[in-house]
Amino acid sequence: MATAKILIHGEWVESDSNETFQAVNPATGEIFDRQYPLSNWTDLDAALKAAQAADEIVRDWPGERFAQFLQAYADLIEANADEIAAMAHQETALPLTPRLRDGELPRTTGQLRQAAQAALSGEWALPVIDEENNIRSMHRSIGPVIVFGPNNFPLAFNGISGGDFAAAIAAGNPAIAKGHPSHPETTRLLAEAALQAAQETNFPPGFVQLVYRMSGEDGIKTIKDPRIAAVGYTGALGAGLKVKAAADEAGKPAYLELSSINPVFVLPGYFSEKSDDLLDEFTGSCLMGSGQFCTNPGLVILPPGDNVSGWIGKLQEKFSASSCGALLSESVRDNFLASVKFLTEQGAELLTGGKAQQGEGFAVQSTLLTCSAEQFLKAPETFQREAFGNGSLLVTTSDTDQMIQIARALEGQLTGTIYLSENDDDAAVYSKLEPVLRRKVGRLLNNKMPTGVAVSPAMNHGGPYPATGHPGFTSVGIPASMRRFSMLQSYDNIPQQRLPAALKS
Amino acid sequence: MATAKILIHGEWVESDSNETFQAVNPATGEIFDRQYPLSNWTDLDAALKAAQAADEIVRDWPGERFAQFLQAYADLIEANADEIAAMAHQETALPLTPRLRDGELPRTTGQLRQAAQAALSGEWALPVIDEENNIRSMHRSIGPVIVFGPNNFPLAFNGISGGDFAAAIAAGNPAIAKGHPSHPETTRLLAEAALQAAQETNFPPGFVQLVYRMSGEDGIKTIKDPRIAAVGYTGALGAGLKVKAAADEAGKPAYLELSSINPVFVLPGYFSEKSDDLLDEFTGSCLMGSGQFCTNPGLVILPPGDNVSGWIGKLQEKFSASSCGALLSESVRDNFLASVKFLTEQGAELLTGGKAQQGEGFAVQSTLLTCSAEQFLKAPETFQREAFGNGSLLVTTSDTDQMIQIARALEGQLTGTIYLSENDDDAAVYSKLEPVLRRKVGRLLNNKMPTGVAVSPAMNHGGPYPATGHPGFTSVGIPASMRRFSMLQSYDNIPQQRLPAALKS
Repeated sequence: MATAKILIHGEWVESDSNETFQAVNPATGEIFDRQYPLSNWTDLDAALKAAQAADEIVRDWPGERFAQFLQAYADLIEANADEIAAMAHQETALPLTPRLRDGELPRTTGQLRQAAQAALSGEWALPVIDEENNIRSMHRSIGPVIVFGPNNFPLAFNGISGGDFAAAIAAGNPAIAKGHPSHPETTRLLAEAALQAAQETNFPPGFVQLVYRMSGEDGIKTIKDPRIAAVGYTGALGAGLKVKAAADEAGKPAYLELSSINPVFVLPGYFSEKSDDLLDEFTGSCLMGSGQFCTNPGLVILPPGDNVSGWIGKLQEKFSASSCGALLSESVRDNFLASVKFLTEQGAELLTGGKAQQGEGFAVQSTLLTCSAEQFLKAPETFQREAFGNGSLLVTTSDTDQMIQIARALEGQLTGTIYLSENDDDAAVYSKLEPVLRRKVGRLLNNKMPTGVAVSPAMNHGGPYPATGHPGFTSVGIPASMRRFSMLQSYDNIPQQRLPAALKS
Repeated sequence: MATAKILIHGEWVESDSNETFQAVNPATGEIFDRQYPLSNWTDLDAALKAAQAADEIVRDWPGERFAQFLQAYADLIEANADEIAAMAHQETALPLTPRLRDGELPRTTGQLRQAAQAALSGEWALPVIDEENNIRSMHRSIGPVIVFGPNNFPLAFNGISGGDFAAAIAAGNPAIAKGHPSHPETTRLLAEAALQAAQETNFPPGFVQLVYRMSGEDGIKTIKDPRIAAVGYTGALGAGLKVKAAADEAGKPAYLELSSINPVFVLPGYFSEKSDDLLDEFTGSCLMGSGQFCTNPGLVILPPGDNVSGWIGKLQEKFSASSCGALLSESVRDNFLASVKFLTEQGAELLTGGKAQQGEGFAVQSTLLTCSAEQFLKAPETFQREAFGNGSLLVTTSDTDQMIQIARALEGQLTGTIYLSENDDDAAVYSKLEPVLRRKVGRLLNNKMPTGVAVSPAMNHGGPYPATGHPGFTSVGIPASMRRFSMLQSYDNIPQQRLPAALKS
């Protein structure tokens, strides 16, 4: 079978490299026939050259041009929605419906269209006109962006179609997408639509490009290359820290979504009122999509009280009785099991699960672990080890002060949730816990599981390190996400005719 | 003479360290009697502890509280303006009038008052309310900030009174100022006023603190300490890169103003019309304040043409006949002379100056160097070596394409200036040069020297690396500068009564 081509300079071309890889069906463990290239530096250099050339052409184009591309692209994805969603299902084992076809795909096209609207309106750029001093400023495009997409959202976070891609393009930048090797064919189908949209809307050839995979070394070299202006990355912590180090060394912005265990604090008043509701709510959130959400509730801090152990028993039954779909890949499964092993070795008790589900591809048993607040507080970094998948760690406490101490010991997180009673029972604890937790998390929730990430201008899908690389930015939520891929440009004493349209008097 | 005390936890206390330093009068080379401590980790740990405690108290305070402090502080600086300006003159040798008393001091109080207004209005925080999804977000304080002030603006960029300090405070954060050791007594006087203002407006003791100096090792340790949330730094490139590396490793934001040679391109049409005007304009800008501005025009790219050598001759005469005040310190002088030596060793021709001015403290002769475009383009990094002080490098060209090639070879800069004719003579060159230069600089100017940095909301005193650490932020210009010292906080499903005031419906 012929090796798939890569998208460079407006054409599908053969990779210069002979190395290839194949994706795997996570539901069965079978290897797909299709071959994809592991690109070498010759491929990447060609992409960088084409991106730079495209950048020189488009960088003064008005927002409406980028809006036209984004709209055309959204239309083409929709026109091909069934095929794309089916392929994503095949490559990720995520449910075809409602998840992929009715959830993630419309979310993806919705994001592209929101980005188009924002590019058109131009408000994202925060233009400021100081007539008195004749100084003006706004955010403008920064240059070619490389986007590394993750494994867990093959459409809405894909390097060629997701939030980072949409934000980079809407801010006026060419994008080089690095697809995730676990769903290359889905990525290829999306890139076909992206190329067609770019051609229909008369963009230069290097405006959107795709490679499937590269060596770590070539990845670092690409990030450091002066033809790359900024980096978007969603994925594992280890690789992400290498991306960050390379970008930091080169002095360029990298926006990283790395890891988060999304602590959920259940206060005593809420627990005594509604602990049964919480059983269903938590189980649904934790096991949805086999738990493969960046905002999966991986740490639950339970209140003190005699009823807690009974509640844990009920939850344990629910988890034991549940069955999740396959995890995204063999390595996701292995990492999950390794984290469970690590946590139990450190003293956490395995309540249920913790093993592979035999005969069902890469699925694992729904897993619950528990430890005491004392254990957690003795080694907080240890017990914050992420187990990405359908599992969670329950921490029991003997007083509410311990809950606050745990909040103090948390690393930066995407989300933090507090369940509390709406009568005054939990008010005192909340007033102590909230300020501590607030600073540790990008998004604070009350009485709601963190899994859903609405594409809202008020969303913050970000947070302090190590959840991301910078606490001031969000990767979801237009227009704020666009400003990541911009530079601030001031114009001092520039006559009207030479100003960008948004800065003219 | 007793060693000066440091300001920790709301009191002037003795340093735990026995090591001291003294400042030097740059105009005479004489050492001042006053002794200041080189703080050790015990001092810094106490400051960090107090800053954290203050942060826990003030972090939910409304903007008007911070505005009260900033206004009271500005009033107290004004009440003591003569003494502060006189001391700054003594310690920096910068002219008392108009520079310090009538320029920099009112600029400093003006910045503090602008920051107060911005804290009061709250618009800087970009609040977003999504009623439909009940998600809201805004920028809010990030936590204790350490501010490293530079040598060249003892008031307007001082760690305890300058733009970074004002921005950090206005965004709601406690600040630890690290004064510059070349003007410690000026810094102490300002800190006296800051402390009084903090007391008058009922801030907790660790809200504003001051140390004068620390070892490099303890500086790194402080930056990495989890009690520090963000860093402001203005100063030399070498130390700044260490600050950046420490902050990057700890995953926290550092806003750095590092180095810039502020290229000025003179296009042929302008040159043939107004080259004589440019002589005065350039000389004034380059030699003002003995050239010790971050935006000093350190690189001039001259057009091709027969008249250029005559113009250079006239400029040479002007520089030879000029006499500048002392540089800020012995090390500034030595670094300037070392850069001149380096550039001549690399092949630049010394036209005038290049030596210390005998008998006048740390003054140096006004200096002009020149090289050809060919020389520059062969080793562009070499010829971008900053010579901080009263000097500049003139690059001659044989065609306008070389001017564009030089722009392509530039590193990131705070400013870039193009002088052009307002008839059509320069239009074609400008249209090629501007897009290249635009991406390299934070602020683009036409027909105006870059030295002045207006405190305007439209100012960008920032730029791509290595001018700063991130091209999306400015250190001058309120309210944008405040967002540097904030985190983005989203509220998801939080009832009205538990929302910050700015996010209530």
